[in-house]
Amino acid sequence: MAKTYIFGHKSPDTDTITSSLVMANLEKALGNADAVACRLGGLNKETEYVLNYFDIEAPELIDDVEDDAQVILVDHNSPSESVDNLENAKILKVVDHHKLALETSYPLFYRAEPVGCTETVLFKLYKENGVEVTKEIASLMLSAIISDTLLLKSPTTTEDDVEAVKELAEIAEIDYESYGLEMLKAGTDLSDFSIEEILDLDAKQIDFGDVKSIVNQVNTASIPDVLEMQEDLEDGIQKIIDDEDLDIFMLLITDIVNSNSEVLVLGSQASLVEVAYDVTLEDNHALLEGVVSRKKQVVPIMTETASKL
Amino acid sequence: MAKTYIFGHKSPDTDTITSSLVMANLEKALGNADAVACRLGGLNKETEYVLNYFDIEAPELIDDVEDDAQVILVDHNSPSESVDNLENAKILKVVDHHKLALETSYPLFYRAEPVGCTETVLFKLYKENGVEVTKEIASLMLSAIISDTLLLKSPTTTEDDVEAVKELAEIAEIDYESYGLEMLKAGTDLSDFSIEEILDLDAKQIDFGDVKSIVNQVNTASIPDVLEMQEDLEDGIQKIIDDEDLDIFMLLITDIVNSNSEVLVLGSQASLVEVAYDVTLEDNHALLEGVVSRKKQVVPIMTETASKL
Repeated sequence: MAKTYIFGHKSPDTDTITSSLVMANLEKALGNADAVACRLGGLNKETEYVLNYFDIEAPELIDDVEDDAQVILVDHNSPSESVDNLENAKILKVVDHHKLALETSYPLFYRAEPVGCTETVLFKLYKENGVEVTKEIASLMLSAIISDTLLLKSPTTTEDDVEAVKELAEIAEIDYESYGLEMLKAGTDLSDFSIEEILDLDAKQIDFGDVKSIVNQVNTASIPDVLEMQEDLEDGIQKIIDDEDLDIFMLLITDIVNSNSEVLVLGSQASLVEVAYDVTLEDNHALLEGVVSRKKQVVPIMTETASKL
Repeated sequence: MAKTYIFGHKSPDTDTITSSLVMANLEKALGNADAVACRLGGLNKETEYVLNYFDIEAPELIDDVEDDAQVILVDHNSPSESVDNLENAKILKVVDHHKLALETSYPLFYRAEPVGCTETVLFKLYKENGVEVTKEIASLMLSAIISDTLLLKSPTTTEDDVEAVKELAEIAEIDYESYGLEMLKAGTDLSDFSIEEILDLDAKQIDFGDVKSIVNQVNTASIPDVLEMQEDLEDGIQKIIDDEDLDIFMLLITDIVNSNSEVLVLGSQASLVEVAYDVTLEDNHALLEGVVSRKKQVVPIMTETASKL
């Protein structure tokens, strides 16, 4: 039988890596002996922590797949986030929780739900197919849901995610709150990164109407630790603003322990943040109480505020 | 709560109509009291037969939906086959068995499988959610699978479809073979249609490489009955060839009882059919043994044959 390559998106995170492993295990249980878990890039520090903690091998690193290869996509469906030669592959299945961005010339198995994490969908697939969720599989699923939902505190969290975490924590025999916090903290280690790398790690160009913007987000267990680098960060941000001709650059420093974000803002339209959140920037930064999701708690309100300019 | 409109594709067939009814029933069982089964066009004769047989009311006929309406798509996902203002609606769910042709700006529930019929997927959803498949629901599901798979004889039929038909026939307490044949025969009644309408009913423009083509398909229980109209059909076909500047027009007259097709062919490239199927056209027609699926048994072989010209 031909190999089936299973992989998540480029710049893999914990959901993408664990989902490829968990989906490969499901495929094997369903009789597809040649399913292989793969990845399209290096592991981040959080995912490294997870695989080390449970002593699990990382998926195989691949650059592309041969023409006519059989593939299964997890945690993404957009060709722009997938292998470069996806158009020459035969997509057998997709399991995902993102918006739709894929066209095909043939019918396929497609399973997506608007939940916080792909593993929440995979957990359902295991149950529906009567496939055993072992302690190891439960540990991987649990880690991904904690990662994607910031310990169930992100507004992307659904009831299905909460329910899954409770059931999986029992199977995995893990105190998910203390484990999850350590895992998230491991992901916040910035010590290996230069200022330029930090400002590029998770930067998204998101214009608010006519206001040209970049919103970057870093997770941390200690906002003051990150603000110690404020001077260097501002130098780096100012350079990006000049190079890209931006109106505003927002660096969300998200406290994963207390579920708040300190926002560091530069640019001619920095005061938009003060209007949007009814806060006062002091020394270019302010606390945004309860804000952890760029997608749900920053983009909509900033876009609305900019539209009233 | 806002209404949720549930509908299948334009030019509705039995799968599309029954799937909107069956999905609306599932949604209600899951707590969405405001789910409404709808349809985007008139009923064909086969579907009329089904609804009359089981004394079930047709879904509500709609032209479009209001802006920001909540909708659920069944048996299609392509905006070109859906309500005209789909881009202004919020798609909550899709249940389907076709190729992917939809992009969204938000995540949603998407469930598709490469099986013969949407109802085969819906049957699984009922089971997974522990919702009772009543005699009436089973009758609708069964009718659609028989329709889409031509009584499990089409090459689009999968093991899942066969399994579903067996289970559903028991719940519905129906001898599915005799009922199915009567249902399919009801759909072959051409008495209300003019020659022009027959030649337009299910015509698809499908070019084989550089060979400009239309392939039309009509189902029948008696090929000789259709061939009685040969002279009038040929006049109509020749007119279409002239108007559309076609190289070939194929009319597949599919015998749903014996699972064969007689093909009536006109056009300068008519001999391509003789090469492709190793047959001799006599009086412009020939029997294609075992051919019932335009998608799987005509388009690929004709395209390959044309490529060798």
